[in-house]
Amino acid sequence: MLRSQHHNLFGDRSSFDHLGDALRSPTVSRVIDFASFRIAIAEYLSGDLPYKLSPDDVFLTSGCTQAIEIVVSVLSQPGANILLPRPGFSLYEEQCASSGLDGRHFNLVPDREWEIDLDMVEALADDNTVAMVVINPCNPCGNVLSYQHLSKVAETAKKLGIMVIADEVYNHLTFGKNPFVPMGAFGQTVPVLTLGSLSKRWLVPGWRLGWIAATDPNGILKDTKIIQCIERYLSMSTAPATFVQGAVPEILKNTKDDFFKKTIETLRKSADLCYTKLQEIDCIECPNKPEGSMFVMVKLDISYLDDIQDDFEFCCKLVKEESVVILPGVAVGMKNWLRITFAIESSTLDDALDRLKSFCKRHQKQTN
Amino acid sequence: MLRSQHHNLFGDRSSFDHLGDALRSPTVSRVIDFASFRIAIAEYLSGDLPYKLSPDDVFLTSGCTQAIEIVVSVLSQPGANILLPRPGFSLYEEQCASSGLDGRHFNLVPDREWEIDLDMVEALADDNTVAMVVINPCNPCGNVLSYQHLSKVAETAKKLGIMVIADEVYNHLTFGKNPFVPMGAFGQTVPVLTLGSLSKRWLVPGWRLGWIAATDPNGILKDTKIIQCIERYLSMSTAPATFVQGAVPEILKNTKDDFFKKTIETLRKSADLCYTKLQEIDCIECPNKPEGSMFVMVKLDISYLDDIQDDFEFCCKLVKEESVVILPGVAVGMKNWLRITFAIESSTLDDALDRLKSFCKRHQKQTN
Repeated sequence: MLRSQHHNLFGDRSSFDHLGDALRSPTVSRVIDFASFRIAIAEYLSGDLPYKLSPDDVFLTSGCTQAIEIVVSVLSQPGANILLPRPGFSLYEEQCASSGLDGRHFNLVPDREWEIDLDMVEALADDNTVAMVVINPCNPCGNVLSYQHLSKVAETAKKLGIMVIADEVYNHLTFGKNPFVPMGAFGQTVPVLTLGSLSKRWLVPGWRLGWIAATDPNGILKDTKIIQCIERYLSMSTAPATFVQGAVPEILKNTKDDFFKKTIETLRKSADLCYTKLQEIDCIECPNKPEGSMFVMVKLDISYLDDIQDDFEFCCKLVKEESVVILPGVAVGMKNWLRITFAIESSTLDDALDRLKSFCKRHQKQTN
Repeated sequence: MLRSQHHNLFGDRSSFDHLGDALRSPTVSRVIDFASFRIAIAEYLSGDLPYKLSPDDVFLTSGCTQAIEIVVSVLSQPGANILLPRPGFSLYEEQCASSGLDGRHFNLVPDREWEIDLDMVEALADDNTVAMVVINPCNPCGNVLSYQHLSKVAETAKKLGIMVIADEVYNHLTFGKNPFVPMGAFGQTVPVLTLGSLSKRWLVPGWRLGWIAATDPNGILKDTKIIQCIERYLSMSTAPATFVQGAVPEILKNTKDDFFKKTIETLRKSADLCYTKLQEIDCIECPNKPEGSMFVMVKLDISYLDDIQDDFEFCCKLVKEESVVILPGVAVGMKNWLRITFAIESSTLDDALDRLKSFCKRHQKQTN
């Protein structure tokens, strides 16, 4: 694949004609039509919304990583703060630290299927709060927020006068009772910036193609110049490779349903396997069966264990003794919890969970 | 090309096996070997240096754009300043403004073939100066700095106790008396961060693959933690597409000399054509024939013109009346100069210069 691109641009001709040819090739000529990928993403997202997005509402980014970088940077002002979920995704904390934006944490509640503690959101917010971040389907918890709960989130944000950053990088990766509902469905209530990418649903993280969409039918983000700031940031920043940009319309329009169904089926089976086998481990409690994303948060009961002090030591010893990698909860804001990824081949997952079980047994406290 | 990648990852199988297969494909498996592209870039750059770079000295970026973003961001501290060339490349100014780094400008001197005014560099520097930027081969001036002059630059930077940011994105694109000499050749005298990319020499700007290399054999940038800051920035930022990363070793090792020779020959002819035809225009003075990069800076003598106030108005009217785009000098820091790109097809260039000439004639002052 790289070779054909290589020959295209490195052709055997002695003038800049070879550049012209490359630009006129079927693949790259689509890139010249700068609007086509914005039209495609606007149409794709509008399919789930009660209003239509315009191509002008969509901004292409180099993966969702850059989308987060841009949003945090644009919202940073001296004294401002942003409300972040706990557990969450550590890139938000890192970008806030880098930009000087104060990150305050509200809880996701395991006993309420990881719903947002909206009372805590209200208690944390003040006049300097600029936004709250909602990650749904949730990394790291594996839950999918209901329409009713998202509606309450929108009402709370409206009441507080803050916008919502909706990180929907796992959009449509759901396999439980709640369907995926985009936060943008409540754009009439509260302005929403929706972050997404090709990475997860299309399983191409290395392609580095993401987006920011202003799901804001009342144009509040335009009036408050936030859109203008995003445009300015993008004008001096890097972008996805042009030939990936050029492929977006085809990918979004022509990927067969069958591909998505198979991914969902595989994730559902992996989630089932993971949940079932975790029940057999004494020191681990899994409060909710995962219904979306690729992760599940489980609680580690240290009191069962003999020579392990906390989640961090647990994970270090686990990787050393069993070559199994689990993220300690402390990395996502919850000490003595664990984040487990189940989006791996089922035979490998099965083996890894067996190793986890034997590890826990080996380190279990001896009772007489 | 995109289709084959598409099919690879979107294969007709019902488990995550299809991901495994994609990762094992010849193209992508190279990506797994994270060090291979760093080894390849280190070897490529070492070919021009009096010492060997290690793969640890090389950092991959999403184009040179991100390399500039990272370097400016890493050097930003309250009160710090950086010395930038005038004329220069406006992304430095924009990134400095965004990061709060004070940019101070030293002149490039047209009467001395655009050499750096080193007396001015010394006059501008103070205890808070962290670095100076050297763009060579030069965008926008089209000159190539000599070994002797670069040696003086290194001595000046050493005397001032500052590092050099060497923007060598046009490296080896030279076609005049001076060969390309990397600033890193003086790394024993002064620590240098070298910025580069595939974009220009391999004519693939849309691929978004660049690098930062610590051309610093004495390890001063490591000791002062600048390397650590770059690593931290990269850990929370976006990266080039993995399959472009995977192609780097092959591109750097196996591109035939013939390809480079043809590019150079084409640029040389375009530069000649441009220089010759510009002599025929009364209101434009071209102090130096371009010998590198893809640009030339020319002086606009407004006194010859009837109804044009400055370079900006000149360029606006030119694009409106003749559909020819030239960058006004004010955009690169020099009012009433123009930056002309000659890296276009020769027939188009010829036509554009004819239009420029007739535009100037049409707007010339009437003398009796």
